[in-house]
Amino acid sequence: YGRFGLDYNEANKTVVGRSDTNITSRFRLTFDASTETDGGVTVGGRIRAQAENRDGGQGAATFSSPQFHVAYGGLRVNVGNIWGAIDSAPGLYLNTTSVGTGIDGMGFNSLAIKGAGFDTFTSAGAGVGGIEAIYSAGGFTGHISFSQQNGGAVAGSADGLQRTAIMLNYSFGDYFVTGAYQSADNGRTITKGGVAGVEADDDLMFFAAGADFGQFGATLQYAQTEEADSVTLAGEAEIGAASTLIGWVNSTDIDNTVTVGQTVTDGTAFGINYEYDLGGGVTFVAGYVQTAAATNENSVQAGLHFSF
Amino acid sequence: YGRFGLDYNEANKTVVGRSDTNITSRFRLTFDASTETDGGVTVGGRIRAQAENRDGGQGAATFSSPQFHVAYGGLRVNVGNIWGAIDSAPGLYLNTTSVGTGIDGMGFNSLAIKGAGFDTFTSAGAGVGGIEAIYSAGGFTGHISFSQQNGGAVAGSADGLQRTAIMLNYSFGDYFVTGAYQSADNGRTITKGGVAGVEADDDLMFFAAGADFGQFGATLQYAQTEEADSVTLAGEAEIGAASTLIGWVNSTDIDNTVTVGQTVTDGTAFGINYEYDLGGGVTFVAGYVQTAAATNENSVQAGLHFSF
Amino acid sequence: YGRFGLDYNEANKTVVGRSDTNITSRFRLTFDASTETDGGVTVGGRIRAQAENRDGGQGAATFSSPQFHVAYGGLRVNVGNIWGAIDSAPGLYLNTTSVGTGIDGMGFNSLAIKGAGFDTFTSAGAGVGGIEAIYSAGGFTGHISFSQQNGGAVAGSADGLQRTAIMLNYSFGDYFVTGAYQSADNGRTITKGGVAGVEADDDLMFFAAGADFGQFGATLQYAQTEEADSVTLAGEAEIGAASTLIGWVNSTDIDNTVTVGQTVTDGTAFGINYEYDLGGGVTFVAGYVQTAAATNENSVQAGLHFSF
Repeated sequence: YGRFGLDYNEANKTVVGRSDTNITSRFRLTFDASTETDGGVTVGGRIRAQAENRDGGQGAATFSSPQFHVAYGGLRVNVGNIWGAIDSAPGLYLNTTSVGTGIDGMGFNSLAIKGAGFDTFTSAGAGVGGIEAIYSAGGFTGHISFSQQNGGAVAGSADGLQRTAIMLNYSFGDYFVTGAYQSADNGRTITKGGVAGVEADDDLMFFAAGADFGQFGATLQYAQTEEADSVTLAGEAEIGAASTLIGWVNSTDIDNTVTVGQTVTDGTAFGINYEYDLGGGVTFVAGYVQTAAATNENSVQAGLHFSF
Repeated sequence: YGRFGLDYNEANKTVVGRSDTNITSRFRLTFDASTETDGGVTVGGRIRAQAENRDGGQGAATFSSPQFHVAYGGLRVNVGNIWGAIDSAPGLYLNTTSVGTGIDGMGFNSLAIKGAGFDTFTSAGAGVGGIEAIYSAGGFTGHISFSQQNGGAVAGSADGLQRTAIMLNYSFGDYFVTGAYQSADNGRTITKGGVAGVEADDDLMFFAAGADFGQFGATLQYAQTEEADSVTLAGEAEIGAASTLIGWVNSTDIDNTVTVGQTVTDGTAFGINYEYDLGGGVTFVAGYVQTAAATNENSVQAGLHFSF
Repeated sequence: YGRFGLDYNEANKTVVGRSDTNITSRFRLTFDASTETDGGVTVGGRIRAQAENRDGGQGAATFSSPQFHVAYGGLRVNVGNIWGAIDSAPGLYLNTTSVGTGIDGMGFNSLAIKGAGFDTFTSAGAGVGGIEAIYSAGGFTGHISFSQQNGGAVAGSADGLQRTAIMLNYSFGDYFVTGAYQSADNGRTITKGGVAGVEADDDLMFFAAGADFGQFGATLQYAQTEEADSVTLAGEAEIGAASTLIGWVNSTDIDNTVTVGQTVTDGTAFGINYEYDLGGGVTFVAGYVQTAAATNENSVQAGLHFSF
């Protein structure tokens, strides 16, 4: 797909040599290939090429590393550039073209997971190397992912960043509930409660619940990381035949016993996303976000998203 | 498209570790995507991937940054990796497969614009970030482009290279006339008439006029930059059913008051380009150029160009 | 095509920060374009984009440099990223999906050419720049290739690595014989018999002969380089409708007069490759290799290869 628009970001006012208003854009090509064995097993692979221009910088497109999959019935196993169980949790992202606010997500401040990293498919450049299994049956989806990087000082052992995550989702009628958990090792560390070396990505918990009554919908998500607890409420309304309005508010409580390595801002953030379907796969998108920062917390975006 | 051929360049005789005769080639893939809204507005994007081998060096293909467009009736607006108003001026480039002489343009010595840069679509790597509008009606085309780069020392302000250009073209029957102008800021500077800090890309003027009587055609172009005035006359003749011969001569007068940063060579250059259509989109191309340099001014190329 | 699988490599036990068991994978896209002139000459080009993940490292896909070709009847001329006459010699590679053992070739220890480089098509990144001609008529194929790199200290002369190679192959009924020779200049040098500066890639000789009786086949190859003489015997058997088993054993004699720059290990290596056709272009591949190294000489791979 392609998307482009104007981005006004108050935070850029304090960056030397950068305007507060820029064009933000992305162009993404996906190369999918798959085949089916005589036994009915699907085997396939995917790479992407993606270019992004943001904050006045120009970017040429680059390829991603590949994802391979083997699928049979409700089970799918991915290796390589995996999706990640946390990143795939229903209720984490907004139901918008950018899965955040505005044209490019505008910082994805609506996510309740604050201060912890998790595995995700990397669309440009090398990704995390991992393996994951996804099983779906009826309204139930289970997802387990594991990634491991080279590193450390031991011969014959890959002791770089390791993440193991599980996600369970159940959908029934107009409702869904999601729970997810991640443990991590050899990653970024913080000092918490006087203890140094606490893994920032470890012990991540995420819960979400949502309801969708056709014209109106709402989602509540809650996440706990080593740095902060955070909750987001998002509401969605369809206006007329072609318009959709989504509003969200996030409240984050940072852990005050984190003395070194706190990356999260305490406080309340909110945002509004408006989309209008122009037909032919083209959507007009506008968004406003106020972050939890004390100053320069406003940003506005408007532009077009088109599918191909 | 693809193109490849032999390049003999006398100037390479003085380059250590490089032969005077090399293979010159290019392979270009274009990824275009566009769609139309219910209101009849076209929305689309383009990226390219291009590889070039030149002067004995081998190059892998790389992607460009994207260009996005919105078009309606005779109006088209591009954002991102723009074409540029100067680069789009009819009469600036030759009517050949390379839009210059020979297989790879052979230095594009036929251009009357000397010593000033202008915006152009970058086919491999990041381009300039800009916005432009092109309007066509009847025989008239107007084109305005603006580009801006990050830079400078002021917070909240992008004070890198900025170029604003306008181009007007009118075609009537077998004739056309073109006029274009560019102003630029924060770019390369020269010292001229004792004044330091003169913008080399600023105050660029370009005029062209042409006539095409079927079998014969001619174009005259004139450009004035801060470094030099230059005029090129090009003549075109179709020989038989499949051959085209184009000859050009350029005369350049450098500004002698430029004491620092003069990049243009004073004098006369000329070239000949011969093309033979082999069918199936394949063209045999041969070219000869003598540049304005005092020594090592000859180069010859011959090879094939094929469309796909 | 795509391929992915598990790789257990004993040699990784001695590498700091790397596991002995990793996922090995490759994703390859080929962009081919060709057209035919009115005179029946085919003109075309090819680039590839390929991503590889190996030994726990993640790799994004990158483009290759292009190959161009002109073909007419049994003659084909390639320029740019050439195949190379040695690399194209029938009998050099195994008749498997990886043309070596296992998923990713497992070091290609079955090749009898040891300690000398030769030109080959580079699927990711810049290749060698060369030109080659291939002529086929009846059972006969002749192949001459030449490559040249920039380098050296002489103006107007490209004195980097130069390789010239010739390969002759004749197939008759169920049998074939191959002979090939390479001379090289300005490449890696070794000290041999007290003489310094001996070109390691020069004076390479290769011979192969094979027979294929439907269900069973065998190939014998012998190569002599400045560093070592080596011989490989490979046998192939089809088992049932969908399975193929290939076993090979290589014996290498290094030249003991090479006192500086010896890169080859003396001794015997062997391997087994098993493939099972799952249908739809998907093949299950498993391989075992024992190299000539004294310790950590075992590796095992198993996974899937799929065509697209």
